[in-house]
Amino acid sequence: MTFRHRHLLGIEPLHPAEITTLLDLADTYVDLNASPNKRREVLAGLTQINMFFENSTRTQASFEIAGKRLGADVMNMAMQASSIKKGETLIDTALTLNAMHPDLIVVRHPHSGAVNLLAEKVNCAVLNAGDGRHEHPTQALLDALTIRRAKGRLHRLTIAICGDIAHSRVARSNLILLGKMENRVRLVGPPTLMPSQIDQFGVEVYDDMKAGLEGADVVMMLRLQRERMDGGFIPSEREYYHRYGLDAEKLACAKDDAIVMHPGPMNRGVEIDGTIADDINRSVIQEQVEMGVAVRMAAMDLLARNLRETADGAGMMA
Amino acid sequence: MTFRHRHLLGIEPLHPAEITTLLDLADTYVDLNASPNKRREVLAGLTQINMFFENSTRTQASFEIAGKRLGADVMNMAMQASSIKKGETLIDTALTLNAMHPDLIVVRHPHSGAVNLLAEKVNCAVLNAGDGRHEHPTQALLDALTIRRAKGRLHRLTIAICGDIAHSRVARSNLILLGKMENRVRLVGPPTLMPSQIDQFGVEVYDDMKAGLEGADVVMMLRLQRERMDGGFIPSEREYYHRYGLDAEKLACAKDDAIVMHPGPMNRGVEIDGTIADDINRSVIQEQVEMGVAVRMAAMDLLARNLRETADGAGMMA
Amino acid sequence: MTFRHRHLLGIEPLHPAEITTLLDLADTYVDLNASPNKRREVLAGLTQINMFFENSTRTQASFEIAGKRLGADVMNMAMQASSIKKGETLIDTALTLNAMHPDLIVVRHPHSGAVNLLAEKVNCAVLNAGDGRHEHPTQALLDALTIRRAKGRLHRLTIAICGDIAHSRVARSNLILLGKMENRVRLVGPPTLMPSQIDQFGVEVYDDMKAGLEGADVVMMLRLQRERMDGGFIPSEREYYHRYGLDAEKLACAKDDAIVMHPGPMNRGVEIDGTIADDINRSVIQEQVEMGVAVRMAAMDLLARNLRETADGAGMMA
Repeated sequence: MTFRHRHLLGIEPLHPAEITTLLDLADTYVDLNASPNKRREVLAGLTQINMFFENSTRTQASFEIAGKRLGADVMNMAMQASSIKKGETLIDTALTLNAMHPDLIVVRHPHSGAVNLLAEKVNCAVLNAGDGRHEHPTQALLDALTIRRAKGRLHRLTIAICGDIAHSRVARSNLILLGKMENRVRLVGPPTLMPSQIDQFGVEVYDDMKAGLEGADVVMMLRLQRERMDGGFIPSEREYYHRYGLDAEKLACAKDDAIVMHPGPMNRGVEIDGTIADDINRSVIQEQVEMGVAVRMAAMDLLARNLRETADGAGMMA
Repeated sequence: MTFRHRHLLGIEPLHPAEITTLLDLADTYVDLNASPNKRREVLAGLTQINMFFENSTRTQASFEIAGKRLGADVMNMAMQASSIKKGETLIDTALTLNAMHPDLIVVRHPHSGAVNLLAEKVNCAVLNAGDGRHEHPTQALLDALTIRRAKGRLHRLTIAICGDIAHSRVARSNLILLGKMENRVRLVGPPTLMPSQIDQFGVEVYDDMKAGLEGADVVMMLRLQRERMDGGFIPSEREYYHRYGLDAEKLACAKDDAIVMHPGPMNRGVEIDGTIADDINRSVIQEQVEMGVAVRMAAMDLLARNLRETADGAGMMA
Repeated sequence: MTFRHRHLLGIEPLHPAEITTLLDLADTYVDLNASPNKRREVLAGLTQINMFFENSTRTQASFEIAGKRLGADVMNMAMQASSIKKGETLIDTALTLNAMHPDLIVVRHPHSGAVNLLAEKVNCAVLNAGDGRHEHPTQALLDALTIRRAKGRLHRLTIAICGDIAHSRVARSNLILLGKMENRVRLVGPPTLMPSQIDQFGVEVYDDMKAGLEGADVVMMLRLQRERMDGGFIPSEREYYHRYGLDAEKLACAKDDAIVMHPGPMNRGVEIDGTIADDINRSVIQEQVEMGVAVRMAAMDLLARNLRETADGAGMMA
């Protein structure tokens, strides 16, 4: 099955076979990135614009490297949070950029839905690099590729997503993707950091780490997003680590060959013990970063093929 | 007629036939930018440096995209306002950059004349991306291209430039260009926002919008430059909009097919009504942005040709 | 002799013949940079990351231009000082970048030794662009190339390094390099700005400028690094200039054909008289900048050759 989308706005619109198509292509880019000459000209003659309304050195770097390795002309736009206070202004910015005829726009924005709004206004392909608490599709795809390479498959696994679920678009995109691929997903964390409506995803919820990790193939830790907690319960780091931080004792409840993941950057000693993070027999945290570049190359490659096939986007789903 | 200049410092030194040469070349780049492969290697092997001593996301992005599409190695230098307090330091900066053998330097600077000063010190081509209240030649050229494409000609048109004329290098470069091409230029705005010496340009001055727009082919609105108003009269936004903001009632005084322009970014509800700005039958504001990339490609292409012909710049005018 | 290193962390590990190899290659890049087409694809398919934990517009620009002219995909990472407070975090950053498979990482860091630490954690080549008071090898190499081109040789010269020696990694790398090449190095400056342990380098120390410059072939001035002076003696600029600023009277003590150097940016009227800095018969300050790009091209070229020869770095010295 081919990949029939004009944009990559989230995991939600993707068919499982499309996810597999993208991951298969990404596998080839993992090999390319480990080779001496990392250049392929599949995006040559195309213009990629990175618009980050939130700072994210690592994600922006990953998209920038991905685009440059594929031969795109890549431009980073410094979007100060201050310059973009109203939806109206976001649209003016989008229309201005669109008039410069980019082919790919990569957007991170603090507001859920802002990237979808922007995608409606432009003629090019838009990639969501994280919008509010909504979606972060390339993170879920890179996690999926990491799991598939470590476990040999991406279905019928027991995966525990642990920590600050409520504030996490990473968790949201992951549980959609992992559900689509027919895995058993558990959400583990304090009730105060659980989203209010989770029944729709068909997941199991635990507030005890050991119970939640019992028999898990994959332990996916999340970053404690203090910056997104507006009032309400904020746990002390020490207490949080005691109850929900991943240490050797809690990890012992998971399967012997369970892998440990974290989207980075880590708060060592808060949500994860540093020794576990660095244990190359358990932790695949560096592999996640590596897969990130490959998955972004694959996503931009597929979107660019669709751009070329249908100049006006006819026949494409959003 | 060819384009015989070493630098693009302003509209003033340009012959009307040179303007036509540049616009004709830019027309071909408009087509290139709308095509699937936007790369031409006419600047391959050349180094372009963008030095913006004032922030301007949109203009810098336009020059960066223009250079990259033509194959140049483009470098943006973050010039903090603080690092450049004296003319002496500007010259040291210029000499340092010059020693790195760039071929094209694009400069924006808050002081009128700073770009010309810099151009005297370097061996490469300098493009003025706006200096104080002096000139902003690529803006005037992109406006000219937009007008020529919308109206089918660039002469014998009645063009009303409206608003904050006194603080605007955009207005200054435009009225020089439009005058050279034998158009009838009107300046419309409050007397306090009119430059003190305007007789030299042979323009008509209006302080009433409806009278100024009467029979106009082109209505060119300007951004209210509050940041450049040092003391003196500062109108309230509400009063300003009432008297000088472009709304449907005032626009009705212009010709039925009059086009509406704005250099951006817009203050909606201050100098222009949002509905008019978005009216694709009247507003050519997005086309202006599109023409901006094409005009900058043409300018850099022409300057690079001259660099190649005369390694030492002999026979070139400034 | 070939250049047998995996990284360029300092001058200290380099053999004199390796320095000559690098300078010989840099000479060819000086010619390339002065030619109409400055592109060579020797780094094509490679990814270069510039990580500057201290701002340095000029050094970063020099490395960026060097990499782009050689065809590398160059990425600048904005590393705020705040994001990197602990060695642990530096290592996490290094491991994250490493997972993206860069080939060359250029690092400037405020802490001595931080770049060596980072080099131990990554699989690619690391270039030290200045770490604390430790080393700044490409600066010493560009100074060496400038001297060799001006004087026709790089040995048996009398070279006076003047000013704020204690805070200067430039001075440290230079005196190691110049000592290796069998020159007579003098350190000239106030005792309070002399490092405490200098006997190891076999240099002569002067606190009187005229005595120190007597018969010198090269007068190398340093920038007064007020930002690195933590407490202790801070001279007034006026008194400093009177005693240690390079003016015509003091320069008259050096040889008639002595050259004047400064790593930039200059404090005119503090450590050097502006007239001398601009005197093209004595000052080689612009040439130093020019040599900087060439030396960095040569260094990256040599390191990339070694990367290609030994994918795992076997047989390379640090």
